[in-house]
Amino acid sequence: MVLDMLEINGVPVEDTYCEAFDGIYSRIIITAKHRWLLKKAAYGSTALPSTVFGESEGGVEKWLSPKETPDGRIGAICQIWVQKTKRFMDVLMREMGKRIRQGILVVPTTRVFNATDSDKHFDAEINVGRCGDGYEWEEEMFGRRVVRVPIMFGEFIIERYIGYAEGIAGGNIWMFCESEESALEAGEAAIEALRDVEGVITSFDICSAGSKPETKYPEIGPTTNHYFCPTLKNKIPDSKVPEGVRSIPEIVINGVSLDVVKKAMFICLDVTSRIDGVLRLSAGNYGGKLGQHKIYLKEIIEEFS
Amino acid sequence: MVLDMLEINGVPVEDTYCEAFDGIYSRIIITAKHRWLLKKAAYGSTALPSTVFGESEGGVEKWLSPKETPDGRIGAICQIWVQKTKRFMDVLMREMGKRIRQGILVVPTTRVFNATDSDKHFDAEINVGRCGDGYEWEEEMFGRRVVRVPIMFGEFIIERYIGYAEGIAGGNIWMFCESEESALEAGEAAIEALRDVEGVITSFDICSAGSKPETKYPEIGPTTNHYFCPTLKNKIPDSKVPEGVRSIPEIVINGVSLDVVKKAMFICLDVTSRIDGVLRLSAGNYGGKLGQHKIYLKEIIEEFS
Amino acid sequence: MVLDMLEINGVPVEDTYCEAFDGIYSRIIITAKHRWLLKKAAYGSTALPSTVFGESEGGVEKWLSPKETPDGRIGAICQIWVQKTKRFMDVLMREMGKRIRQGILVVPTTRVFNATDSDKHFDAEINVGRCGDGYEWEEEMFGRRVVRVPIMFGEFIIERYIGYAEGIAGGNIWMFCESEESALEAGEAAIEALRDVEGVITSFDICSAGSKPETKYPEIGPTTNHYFCPTLKNKIPDSKVPEGVRSIPEIVINGVSLDVVKKAMFICLDVTSRIDGVLRLSAGNYGGKLGQHKIYLKEIIEEFS
Amino acid sequence: MVLDMLEINGVPVEDTYCEAFDGIYSRIIITAKHRWLLKKAAYGSTALPSTVFGESEGGVEKWLSPKETPDGRIGAICQIWVQKTKRFMDVLMREMGKRIRQGILVVPTTRVFNATDSDKHFDAEINVGRCGDGYEWEEEMFGRRVVRVPIMFGEFIIERYIGYAEGIAGGNIWMFCESEESALEAGEAAIEALRDVEGVITSFDICSAGSKPETKYPEIGPTTNHYFCPTLKNKIPDSKVPEGVRSIPEIVINGVSLDVVKKAMFICLDVTSRIDGVLRLSAGNYGGKLGQHKIYLKEIIEEFS
Repeated sequence: MVLDMLEINGVPVEDTYCEAFDGIYSRIIITAKHRWLLKKAAYGSTALPSTVFGESEGGVEKWLSPKETPDGRIGAICQIWVQKTKRFMDVLMREMGKRIRQGILVVPTTRVFNATDSDKHFDAEINVGRCGDGYEWEEEMFGRRVVRVPIMFGEFIIERYIGYAEGIAGGNIWMFCESEESALEAGEAAIEALRDVEGVITSFDICSAGSKPETKYPEIGPTTNHYFCPTLKNKIPDSKVPEGVRSIPEIVINGVSLDVVKKAMFICLDVTSRIDGVLRLSAGNYGGKLGQHKIYLKEIIEEFS
Repeated sequence: MVLDMLEINGVPVEDTYCEAFDGIYSRIIITAKHRWLLKKAAYGSTALPSTVFGESEGGVEKWLSPKETPDGRIGAICQIWVQKTKRFMDVLMREMGKRIRQGILVVPTTRVFNATDSDKHFDAEINVGRCGDGYEWEEEMFGRRVVRVPIMFGEFIIERYIGYAEGIAGGNIWMFCESEESALEAGEAAIEALRDVEGVITSFDICSAGSKPETKYPEIGPTTNHYFCPTLKNKIPDSKVPEGVRSIPEIVINGVSLDVVKKAMFICLDVTSRIDGVLRLSAGNYGGKLGQHKIYLKEIIEEFS
Repeated sequence: MVLDMLEINGVPVEDTYCEAFDGIYSRIIITAKHRWLLKKAAYGSTALPSTVFGESEGGVEKWLSPKETPDGRIGAICQIWVQKTKRFMDVLMREMGKRIRQGILVVPTTRVFNATDSDKHFDAEINVGRCGDGYEWEEEMFGRRVVRVPIMFGEFIIERYIGYAEGIAGGNIWMFCESEESALEAGEAAIEALRDVEGVITSFDICSAGSKPETKYPEIGPTTNHYFCPTLKNKIPDSKVPEGVRSIPEIVINGVSLDVVKKAMFICLDVTSRIDGVLRLSAGNYGGKLGQHKIYLKEIIEEFS
Repeated sequence: MVLDMLEINGVPVEDTYCEAFDGIYSRIIITAKHRWLLKKAAYGSTALPSTVFGESEGGVEKWLSPKETPDGRIGAICQIWVQKTKRFMDVLMREMGKRIRQGILVVPTTRVFNATDSDKHFDAEINVGRCGDGYEWEEEMFGRRVVRVPIMFGEFIIERYIGYAEGIAGGNIWMFCESEESALEAGEAAIEALRDVEGVITSFDICSAGSKPETKYPEIGPTTNHYFCPTLKNKIPDSKVPEGVRSIPEIVINGVSLDVVKKAMFICLDVTSRIDGVLRLSAGNYGGKLGQHKIYLKEIIEEFS
C-alpha cells in the first residue's frame, strides 16, 4: 500500500488545513516627501497587532513608486483590519481614527488616500479631519475629494471617503525548523516573497508565538500552543513537536479575497521549503470550530503547483 | 529702556512656559539576538502614541551595548507611559500587557527586563507570563527573577516584577522654522541630541501636529492649535504665526524626573537654535489650566547655559 | 512668432541632450541568508563610484524575492561598470575581483551568480575563487557551474563564469529646484521610480556634484560645473543658474541598452516634474565632444509620453 | 599536574597572540542635514576595505549628536587607513581624495572636518578642494579653516588641513562558534560593544573570511586560512577546527593606539564569551613574521579583567 504523502520541493507538508476568518479591512495609500518619513508612518501606523485586545491589526502591503501614487510622491499601501462583529463599524471608525491620527498625521509631510476597491466607505472627516477643529476644508485634489487639515508642521491631507470591505484574516503557514537560524531565514524569505502578492499583508511578519484558543486564562485570551513549543518537547506527554525541530515560526496572512490568501499561502510553502533547515511545513487551526474558512494545504498545493 | 530679550545662540526664545503633567511610566530593557529583531520590537512596542485615546505612549530611550544588558545581548531601554488617573493601575496593566505581548513577545528571540528604579511594580506573570497557558515557569536567570514562557519559536523570557513610577509627561519645545526642510533638520537634531540624556523619551519624535485642549469636537479630543498653523496665517484674524515662518514642529518630552525633562528641553533649545532656518523657539501650554507643572524657558536657559 | 516650448507636466524642459558613453558592465545576483547581510553586501560592493579614478562604479538594480534567485534565498541584482578602453578587460577583472572579494565574500552567508545576458564572460575562479588557496572546488549547484570557496565563516559560492557586455553609461537628468528640500524630494522620487526599470542603475543616487570636463586641475579630473552652481550665481558673470533656483541635483543613469537608459531618463523627467519646487528640467553634456551618444530630451519626451 | 587554562566567563581562550601592524590613519568628522544622508556618506566612504589591493580601508567609529560636531549638525567620526610604507603619503592623498570626493562630496548636504589629534596633516585643498575648479575659496567657519566648494547641489565644505597619524591596524579576535547563527549573534554583539570604545573601527565588521599570508596564488594576495575552514574539517589532514565548530568569524580592529586596540580586543572577548554557542575564543597571527606587534590574549585578559 502506498501512502499518499504531501510534499513540496521535497519537504513534507502535513495534510491539514488552516482555519481562517471573515474580517473587515480598510486599505489605504500613505505618501510622504521622504522615505524615512514614509517608513515611520507606514510601520508606525500598522504596528501592534491587537485584534485579540478588541482593537485592530495591520501591515504594509507594498511600497509604491511615485508613478503609482495619486500625488506623485513615494508611497505605501497599508491595510488595517478589525474583526467582523455586529458592531464592527464602531471599532473600525475608532481604530482607523487612532492609527491614522497617531501613526500618520503626526508624522511630517504625510497624506492618506483610499485604496479599497469597495462601494462601502466611512467619512474620514469625522474621525480624522476634525482634528482640524473646524479649520479643515474639503477640496478636489489629485482627482480625489480630500480634506485639508491645517497642522502646525504645515498641512495634512486625507481623502474624505475611505473604503472598507470584507476579506479573509488568519490564513497561516507554520514552518518546522531545525534551528532558530533557519526559522529566521525561512521567515524572512516568506515575508519578502509576499511583497509581490497584491492584496495581502502579514500583520506579525515572522510570528514567534502561535496560539490556541482554549486557555486556562480566559482573561488573557489565546495562549501559547503548548503542543508545538519545542522547549516543552521533553516535559509534557502530548508534545507534537517532531524530532529535530527547535523552532516553529508562523506567518499569518490577511488578504482581500480567499484567492489571494491561498496564493500567498502557497508562496510561503514554496519559498520556505527551499530553505536549509526547514524540515516540515504545516498550518494552524482550531479544530474547525472558530473560523468560517478551512484552507487545505493539499488543495492549494494542487491548485498552484 | 532696555527690553529683556530671551535668546539662545542668537535665536529669540519666547518668554513663556511649557505645561507638563504628572504621568506614570514603566521603563524596561528589551534584548534580542539580532539588531533587526531588536529594532522591530523596540519601535513596534512603542509605536502609536495613544494616550489621548485613553491608552498609552512610549519611546526608545537608548540603545544598549551587550555590556549594558542583563543577558549580555544587544538591547534597548524603552518607556511606556499612561496618564496618572485614579484607575491608572488598570490602564497600565492592560497597556503593558498589550504592548509587550503584541509588540515584543511576538518578535523572535526577544526578552524583557525591568529598568525602572522604583519600589512599586506589577506582576508580569499576570498580564504577560500567562500567555504560557500555565506551562510557563519562574526561575532565577541573569541575577533576576524571570518567567520563562514556552512559545512556538522557542522561548520568551520576562522579568517577573516590572517597576513603575511617577514621572513628568508633556514637556515640549516648539521650533518656528522658515521651511519644512529646516523643520525636519531641527527635529532630527533634537531627537539625536536627546539620545544622550538618560531618562527621557520623545513619544512622537518630530511631532507635526501640536494641539490645543479647547475644541469644537470634544468627541475627538485635542485638536489642531489653529493659532499656530502656517497655512491659516492669512485666513484667520488671530493667527500667531510669525512672519516668514512656514513650519512649527514640536518635540514632546517625557522623563523620569522634572530635572531630566528640563535638561532635555534645554538641549532641544540649544541644538535647534544652531540649525539654519530656525527663526524662533517657544513651548506649548494650555494657559496653565491643565498641567501640574509650568516649566519656564527663561528658567531652564538660566539654569543650564 | 511662437516659440516651441518643451515641457512635461507643465514644467519647462530645456531643449538639450545628455551625452552618454559606451561602457562595460557586469551584472550579478547577490544572495544572502538575512536581509541585513544582503544590504551590507549589495550597498558595500557597489559603493564609491570611482570611474574617474580609473576604477569602477556600480549600483543596486533591484531587490529580488526568493522566487527570483537561483538558490531560493533573498537577493539583489547589482551592476559594476568600467570604462570601455582598450585594456578594459584588465580593469574589469581587477575591479570585479576587488568589489566581490572585499564587498561581498567578506560578508557572512553571501553568494554571487551571473545575471548578465551575454556570451562574453570572465572566469571568476581566477580573480575570486582562488581566495580559496586551491582548496576551492568546482561543482554544479542550482543549475549553475559554481566555485565553492571554503572560508572561516563557512563557505562562499560564486558562479564560475560571470558575463560582461557593452552598455550605456552617463545618461543623466538635471533638476533645477527652488530649495535643497525639493531637490532631495525630487531625487528620492527619481531613484524610487527607477526601481521598476529593468536594466538600469544610478551609481550616485542623488548626485550633488555635477561636473564639466574642462578643468584648471587636470590632475584632479572633472571638476565642478561652475556655470550651474547656485552659490556662484551672483559672483560670476557667466552663471547659467536660472532665477529662483537654489539646488541642481543630477541623476546619473547607466543601463544595459540605449533604450532602457532613454526610458529611465523619461521616468526621471516624468516623476520629478510632479514634485513641488522643481522649476525646470535639463540634462548635462560636454558639448558633444566626449560621449558616443547624444540623447535629446525632446526625443525621449516624444517617444515615451 | 594542573594545566593553566586561559578562559573568560567560562569560555576557553587560546593562549596565543594576534599580530598587528603599524598603519597610518586619518580620522574625520562627517556631518549632514539628515540622518539618511549622513548614513549614506559614512557607510559609502568607508566601504570596500581594500588595503590588500594597495588601497585603503575604513570604518565608522561613532555617531555624533549635534552637540558633538563643529557645525551643530548630526555627524559621524570615521577613520580611513593605509599601510605604513615608504610612500604612504601618496597613497593616503589619493585614497582620501577618492573616498571623500566619491563617497562624501557627492552626497547632498555633507561636510568634512578634521578629527585627528596630530601635528601632521595634508592639505585637502589639493586632493578635494580643487574639485571647485578654482571657484572654491578658503574661510574661517565654525572656528576652523575650511574650503568652501561650490557644487551644483549647493555647497560642500571641508576643513583645509586634515590630520593623519600612526596607529595600530589588524588587531583581531576569532570566535569559534557552533553555528552560523551564534557566529552572527556574537559578531553583532562585538560590533555594538565597540561603539563605546573611542578611537577604534572594525573595517570589516563581522569578517567572514580570515586569511593567512602564505598562498599558492601570490597574485591574489592573502588567501583563505584553510586550517580554520569548517567545511574542510573532514577533507584535510591538518585541519585545526575544533570539534563541534561550524563557523569562525573574525573581528578586525584598527585603533589610534596600542592601548585602545587592546581594550577593544578585551571587550570583544568579554561580550562574545557571553553569547550562547561561542565555544572558544582566539586570535589570528602569521607566526609573528609580518606584524610589528604581538598582542597576547593572556596579557589583555589579565590587564582588563
